Order: sequence, then C-alpha cells, then structure tokens
Amino acid sequence: MTMDYMAEALTEAKKGLGQTSPNPAVGVVIVNHGEVVGRGFHVYANRDHAEVVALAEAGARARGATVYVTLEPCAHQGRTPPCAGALIDAGVSAVVAAMEDPNPLTAGQGFARLRASGIAVHVDARHTAEAEALNEPFCFYMRERRPLVTLKSALTLDGKIAAPDDNEGWITSEQARGHVQLLRHLTDAILTGIGTVESDDCALTDRTGLPRSRPLLRIVADSQLRLRPDSLMVRSGAKDLLVAATSAASAERRRILEKAGVEVVILDGTGGRTNLRALVEFLAGRQYQSLLIEAGSKVNGAALDAGIVDKIFFYYAPKIFGGLQSLPVAGGRGRRRRADAMLFRDVRLHPMSRDEFAVEAWVARGARG
Amino acid sequence: MTMDYMAEALTEAKKGLGQTSPNPAVGVVIVNHGEVVGRGFHVYANRDHAEVVALAEAGARARGATVYVTLEPCAHQGRTPPCAGALIDAGVSAVVAAMEDPNPLTAGQGFARLRASGIAVHVDARHTAEAEALNEPFCFYMRERRPLVTLKSALTLDGKIAAPDDNEGWITSEQARGHVQLLRHLTDAILTGIGTVESDDCALTDRTGLPRSRPLLRIVADSQLRLRPDSLMVRSGAKDLLVAATSAASAERRRILEKAGVEVVILDGTGGRTNLRALVEFLAGRQYQSLLIEAGSKVNGAALDAGIVDKIFFYYAPKIFGGLQSLPVAGGRGRRRRADAMLFRDVRLHPMSRDEFAVEAWVARGARG
Repeated sequence: MTMDYMAEALTEAKKGLGQTSPNPAVGVVIVNHGEVVGRGFHVYANRDHAEVVALAEAGARARGATVYVTLEPCAHQGRTPPCAGALIDAGVSAVVAAMEDPNPLTAGQGFARLRASGIAVHVDARHTAEAEALNEPFCFYMRERRPLVTLKSALTLDGKIAAPDDNEGWITSEQARGHVQLLRHLTDAILTGIGTVESDDCALTDRTGLPRSRPLLRIVADSQLRLRPDSLMVRSGAKDLLVAATSAASAERRRILEKAGVEVVILDGTGGRTNLRALVEFLAGRQYQSLLIEAGSKVNGAALDAGIVDKIFFYYAPKIFGGLQSLPVAGGRGRRRRADAMLFRDVRLHPMSRDEFAVEAWVARGARG
Repeated sequence: MTMDYMAEALTEAKKGLGQTSPNPAVGVVIVNHGEVVGRGFHVYANRDHAEVVALAEAGARARGATVYVTLEPCAHQGRTPPCAGALIDAGVSAVVAAMEDPNPLTAGQGFARLRASGIAVHVDARHTAEAEALNEPFCFYMRERRPLVTLKSALTLDGKIAAPDDNEGWITSEQARGHVQLLRHLTDAILTGIGTVESDDCALTDRTGLPRSRPLLRIVADSQLRLRPDSLMVRSGAKDLLVAATSAASAERRRILEKAGVEVVILDGTGGRTNLRALVEFLAGRQYQSLLIEAGSKVNGAALDAGIVDKIFFYYAPKIFGGLQSLPVAGGRGRRRRADAMLFRDVRLHPMSRDEFAVEAWVARGARG
C-alpha cells in the first residue's frame, strides 16, 4: 500500500480551495487492487461531498476498495447525507484519512461508524499537517468557535507603512500584491478602517477572478459612520458590505448607508471606538471562519491591543523610510516593556519578487509577553 | 581539469578569515599531474602570502604544476615580495584564479606578468562571486577607497528596537547574538552612539575568541564627550577606543579621556553633531576596510540620512512591540515621501534560531529614491 494516494487526494482537495466555505476542502481517491477507480473533491456547500463524487465514479468497483480521504468522513446529516453511511453502503473495505474532522458534530464519530461496520480505518499522520494547513480557517473555527484573524500588511524593512508627507504609489511589488489577492480569495471577511477608506478610496474586493461560493464580506470599522455613500467601497457594494459603528454615530448617516445597501452594526467599545472583539463574535455567529485585516496603523494597533489577531502575514519591501514620523505597521498603545513583547511562532518566510519576502507567523498565546 | 580544486582553494582561504585585514584572505592549491602537491592560505599581514606557503610545500613538484588561487597573485612589492615572481621562479605552467585583484597596485598586472613569462592564465568565473564575497570589505575598500559600512540591528517584526518604558533583556536569541559576534570578528571597526553606551554600558568587543591580527577599533560618536572614564567602554580599552567628538566638547573632558588611553578626534558636523561622513573618511585614511554600526535609533537614522551606509544586517526577532512610542530601528529625519524610500538590493535571508531570521541587503545606490 503506497501512501502516494493521499498526496493525490490532497491535490484533489486543493481544487475546491476558496469555494467550500463554510465547508472544508476535501479530496478523495478510491483505490481497488492498485488501480484508482474514483476521485472527487468538495467544491461547494449544497453540492455532493467529495466521497460521494468519488463513489459515483467508482460505481461497483468501490466494493472492497480502499478510500483515501483528506478529512474524516462526516457522520452527521448536514445539507447532504453523512458520507460515512455512503462509504458503508458502497462496501469499501478500508478508509485512510489524513486527519480527524475537528467539527464537533463528527470528531471521531465518522471513524467510529466506519469501524462499527467492519471497515478498517487508518489515520495517515504523515499527511496530517498538510491536510490541516489546507483547511486552516475551518479547523480553527471548529476548535475555537470564532474566525481565524490574520493581520496582513505591506511594510518596509524598518516596519513602516506610510511616509510622513506623501504616499503615492505602492510599498510592495505587483507580485506581492497579487499574493495578497490570493489571501483575500481564501478568506471569508476582510476588515479595514475608515481612515484607510478615506485615504485610499479602496474597494477591498477579491480580484483573483477565481470562483467563490460565498461573497467576501467587506467590513469597515467606522465608529462615527464617516463612510461616504459615493466612496468606491459603497458604490462597489453588492450586499457584501458591513460597517461596524458605535451608538455615537448619526442615525441619519446610518439611514443613508443602509439605503445604499450597506449593513450597519453597532458595536460599542471603550473610548468611543468600535469594539473589535465584539465584531469577531458577531462574525463567529454568522459562521465566518476567517477575517483578514488590511488596515492602517491605528486599526492594526487596536486589533493587536485587543488580542484578536491570530496570525500575521507581513510583506516586506526592500525599502527603508526611517524617521520618527513615518507610521509603523502597528500604532496604538503597544507593549511598554521589552519583556512584554507580543511573541510569534511558526514563522515562515515566503519569497515574493526579487529582494522581497513575506513573513507568515502565528501569535504565540500563553507564552509570556 | 576539474574545477573542484578552486573550491578547495576557497576552503583554504577561509582559514585566514578575520585575521588578514588589511590584506585579503587568499587560498592556494597546487596540482601536478592530478595530485595536490601544495596548499596554503594567507593568515596575517607580514606573514608569507598563500602562494609562497603552497610553493614551499610543493617544492620541486611546483615545476609544471597548475596553481589554483582565489585571488590574482600580487605583482607589487609590499610587506612581502610579489607572488607572481615567486610563481614564475618556481616554474609553474598554469595559474587559475577566481578573480582579479581589485587592488590598483595589482589589478591585472599579476596576470600580465605571469603571461609574459609564458604561464597560462585562466580566470574561473564560476567561483568569482564566492571569492568576492570572501573578501567583501577588502574588495569594497580597494574600489571605493573607503570602508564598507554595515548597519546592524536587532529588531522586532514591526521594526522596533526599544520599548517605551523598560528594555531589560534582549530582543533576539543567543544564537542571533552569537552571529553578531561573527560580524564583529570580520570587521575592522565598530561604531555606536554615546546614548547606547550610557544606557547599555556595553563593551562592543569581539567576543568570538577567534584570533585576529588587527584589534577591533571601537568608536563612540559622542559630540559633547559625555563618555565616562569609568564606563566599561573606557575601562576595557587597550588602545582600541576612538571617540568622535565635536569642537564644542570640553577640553578638560578630552584630556581626561586621552589620559585614560582613549583617542579623541574632532569631526564637526551640522547642528552640533558628529560628522559621520568625515568619520568614514578618517577611517579610510587609516586603512580600515570595514565599519559595523551597532547603535540606537538616533545614530542609525543619522548614518542612513548621511548616506554612509552600504549594507544592512537586520536580525528580526519573532516579536512585535506595536505602539507609536516604541523606538524604530532608524530615527532621524528619514524619507518624507513613499516614492523616496531608500532602496535595497541583493536581499539575503539568513535563518537564525527557531522563528528568527536575519536580512542582509545592500543599499541600492543610483536607483530612484
């Protein structure tokens, strides 16, 4: 029994990436006597799960076959019937899964059901990390019951995102900016601050052109509802724009925005600011599994200070602004003592264009600082 | 003819690294009928050059041999006789060199002299970059007639070097700090500001324990001569401490420092500050081929603003301070417009300890910004 079939199943799974939320991306390869008799991947909520697609292709040859699947087959009735049942009905003899489903509705019950029907079940630990990474927001959401929050920024080698006098042009290259589009494609929601909207008149859309099942929810932290109805943000809206304001905002401005198709939610925080923790809870309630923050120094700092950031994705340009007046990637209060610095783990370096790289890292929770 | 001999010659050359300044590190392998008959490396000014060492080992078997050398053999009489002459006298038949000597006293004349004596000369372009990198400061000094200036700093992912309230402890790991010691070992001079000396009471010594022919010159930019005679910096002095002051400094303080064995040089700059450009010129005149800046936000910014920095070596810790009051790696005036950012080229990422990395890069001169 070679394990390459799991690599093939992972390749299948990737075909659904960016389209499956709030479902995970899943890939399946069915092997009978050394021959691949069925393949499938999950593409879309409400569509057949990967197992069902692959079983349909395999037909009668599923009987006695080994099924390689990137995630534990579900045991619960969701939008579609449970896949464990379908595998049992098809008479497969063994299931190799890359990981257990972190969804508490399944979480080992899929395996248990298969085993109870006499099907051999094996978890392929060699591919677990890759399978997890494939569905990072899904796994995070299932375990933490809130969206995975990634702080993304383009910055200079000295940590700056804006020069004091003039910020025409881009900090990073076209290639790095293209990579950001991929991050947007793989996220459910994106947050920026009203300051960034006012200075950049940005749309914050997913411009990859790749299909997605769920619209990218664009969110503006705008405590006073300064957002202009004629901004690109509002004009490009298609029921995909949420503004997080405070009760101090004018009711009249709220009416105008709502009339323009914008959803307004009141989330009062301290000091007249939007409550970012409450925003994350709000998104959790709506089953948003991931939030990308693409904002200015102030919102970045507020998000870090509020402790809502789980990951960073920093794109470093081969540049230095220097000077005490250029804006750092994270403003706000920050940490006052060196010993209290926020710590990061699992730092990964991603080469971008020539002389440019990105740093992906997880906030190290529980660690001192 | 295999080229692996040049790799061996480069390995020989590395044995002298950190000990040869102001001479280059050079390695030689002599091959006769496929057999290595002599090896040598340059270890120390006033000692025999690598060629002479290898020829001595080869003895009579140097006749008709091919000599692999990492740098063009010198043609001029220096502290030792010219190596080109020694090779000719030994009757070698061919010389393969990794690069031409950038020293204007040789610069192709070594090759010319060998060729004039009927010796075949070949420049092995495949190893030129490595041979250059081995003697980066030497090559830079020979071409630019001034020391290569490297700005080194340990910083957080958001570009900070100090928290607002308390800076006990280190930003980077022991491993990264050990790497800094290697940088110190490979440099001729090191510069810091009086602010750093006062806050850290540092010694700025080369603590690798590795032999060096030339003491590491420690320099303090101290316009007002605030340096205390009882500071570790002064107490650890052994004719290796230079203080760059301005004419505004007290003559009495100067006398005290000089009595403590400190050399004081007056280099007036604008606004009462030490003239860092003049300092670099001063070092050039004394044949210092490299200067490492390990300072605080102010001196770092001043050095970048003065345009004296050629390279950066930034050690990034997996940390974030955040906040507008933490100190950035480079203070000063900085660039006012995004389009005017200082640009860097040949960015190299060096993994340090877990989750930690360093960025080595050259200032891109001539480029816009």
